[in-house]
Amino acid sequence: MKILVTGSSGFIGRRLARSLAQRGDQVTGASAENLEIDDVDCLNLDLLDIEALEVLSSRCSPDVLIHLAGLASVGRSWTHPADYFRVNVLGTENLLRSFPRAKILFASSAEVYGAVPEEQQPLSEEMLPAPGNPYALTKAAAERLVEAAGGTVVRFFTIVGAGQSRRFALPSFAEQLAELRCSGGGTMKVGNLSAQRDFLHVEDAVEAMVVLTDSELPETVYNVGGGEVVSIRQALDRLIALSGVEVKVEVDAERMRPIDVPLQSANTARLRSLGWTTRRTLGDALSEIWQESLEAVSASA
Amino acid sequence: MKILVTGSSGFIGRRLARSLAQRGDQVTGASAENLEIDDVDCLNLDLLDIEALEVLSSRCSPDVLIHLAGLASVGRSWTHPADYFRVNVLGTENLLRSFPRAKILFASSAEVYGAVPEEQQPLSEEMLPAPGNPYALTKAAAERLVEAAGGTVVRFFTIVGAGQSRRFALPSFAEQLAELRCSGGGTMKVGNLSAQRDFLHVEDAVEAMVVLTDSELPETVYNVGGGEVVSIRQALDRLIALSGVEVKVEVDAERMRPIDVPLQSANTARLRSLGWTTRRTLGDALSEIWQESLEAVSASA
Repeated sequence: MKILVTGSSGFIGRRLARSLAQRGDQVTGASAENLEIDDVDCLNLDLLDIEALEVLSSRCSPDVLIHLAGLASVGRSWTHPADYFRVNVLGTENLLRSFPRAKILFASSAEVYGAVPEEQQPLSEEMLPAPGNPYALTKAAAERLVEAAGGTVVRFFTIVGAGQSRRFALPSFAEQLAELRCSGGGTMKVGNLSAQRDFLHVEDAVEAMVVLTDSELPETVYNVGGGEVVSIRQALDRLIALSGVEVKVEVDAERMRPIDVPLQSANTARLRSLGWTTRRTLGDALSEIWQESLEAVSASA
Repeated sequence: MKILVTGSSGFIGRRLARSLAQRGDQVTGASAENLEIDDVDCLNLDLLDIEALEVLSSRCSPDVLIHLAGLASVGRSWTHPADYFRVNVLGTENLLRSFPRAKILFASSAEVYGAVPEEQQPLSEEMLPAPGNPYALTKAAAERLVEAAGGTVVRFFTIVGAGQSRRFALPSFAEQLAELRCSGGGTMKVGNLSAQRDFLHVEDAVEAMVVLTDSELPETVYNVGGGEVVSIRQALDRLIALSGVEVKVEVDAERMRPIDVPLQSANTARLRSLGWTTRRTLGDALSEIWQESLEAVSASA
């Protein structure tokens, strides 16, 4: 198949593009950053550049468009809502217009559900979105456009694994731990760790996208979550145990922010009905994150 | 013509519904609040109630759907983004689905332009939206859905006149002035008044909607602004002069909020090309607001 992957330099994108190419698909990767991937035709693309999109659509007529590109920091979306609107909403709209004949898979987020009481969880796809921050608003808005264009929405829960930006909680903790290991231990300052998230290994997220690529899709929205629902605090404790580093975790009042969404737990029956299942654990992801941090700290030492 | 007006109990809606009915249109007014309007078939409607929308669309098949309903407080949208998403985005989507054959006029806002430097103003319809708050995000998102459905977007600038909620600046100032008049003058505490806005008399806004209802529309977006661009401070000073009340205006640090959008000035060439023009001034609106406040204070005294 001919497949166009946007956000192909990202955490999921580069693995997915590689995986599809390895099995024989003809993959084009489009991304705002330069990243070479074996057997993938990689190119730079600004989703707001209509002319560049026209050139691309005249050269490339994908059977499937997997749209992973987007801005993804909830925190930054509060201060830069216009950027989030342009990239996540207008960028998606531009893509939909440029590739009207492709099967569309759009990467959205469990953030669109907002804060749902525990007794109404796990979260099912037919629940009405209640986005609680500008990032979630832009994803929920883009979902409407994707659905109107006949595409499919994929709501990712908390994806973890090696290769994620240090801006996210677990990679940042792992980096601090690896540094503390060199100095024989110490104190880690953390913010509010009470949020419970539904963790998913990045390779299982990639496989979910492959299954969705290959399947006839009877529904328009699919949750992708791993089913291991633990607090950030528990995940951190497991990472500390794994590392063997002697650390004291200190809650820093200055880092405390209210948790908008205390719990996210995914109902993934729809995706499972297509034959997908998880094959890795949160433990696997934590080991890989820790290993990666050790290597990064050794390399910089 | 058969015309459905949503938000028919609102500041613009009730005047527009009445005006259309008076000239002979068959008008249905839908609103979350109860308000009777002469010669208008008024009904309660929750835009999120799909079944109610089905009943309405089976009974009423409008030639024109004028969608004014929505949540409209920028301030409240920061704390209630999910409500804003549901009403302004999902509500609009539900309406579009329910009335696929109607000509659609959707009331959006100049807020979708965001903060645009003075040298790039007046604001033209083809500028890329840069919404700077959750309210503006929801309006900009709903605009995409309206355009995708072949509808027309109407971007209102700052509409003023009698009958507006006291939550807005000028009616609130007028009310304070009317109260101070009874006690022989005093001090008014105000927040940041430096924002410059493009003021439009509500009756001119109503006429704009009538022109858009009646015209063949070659474009998908129309600005509606009055062309009187003054700061909130200047508008307040004119209101004080009008009232004749002896007041001292005191800037209250606690009320100071950063002005996200310092200036909004509308290019209205598109709308004017359809034959619309302003027929009232900001001065007319201020007189009417002042008169209304005097009557309200006398009535409650």
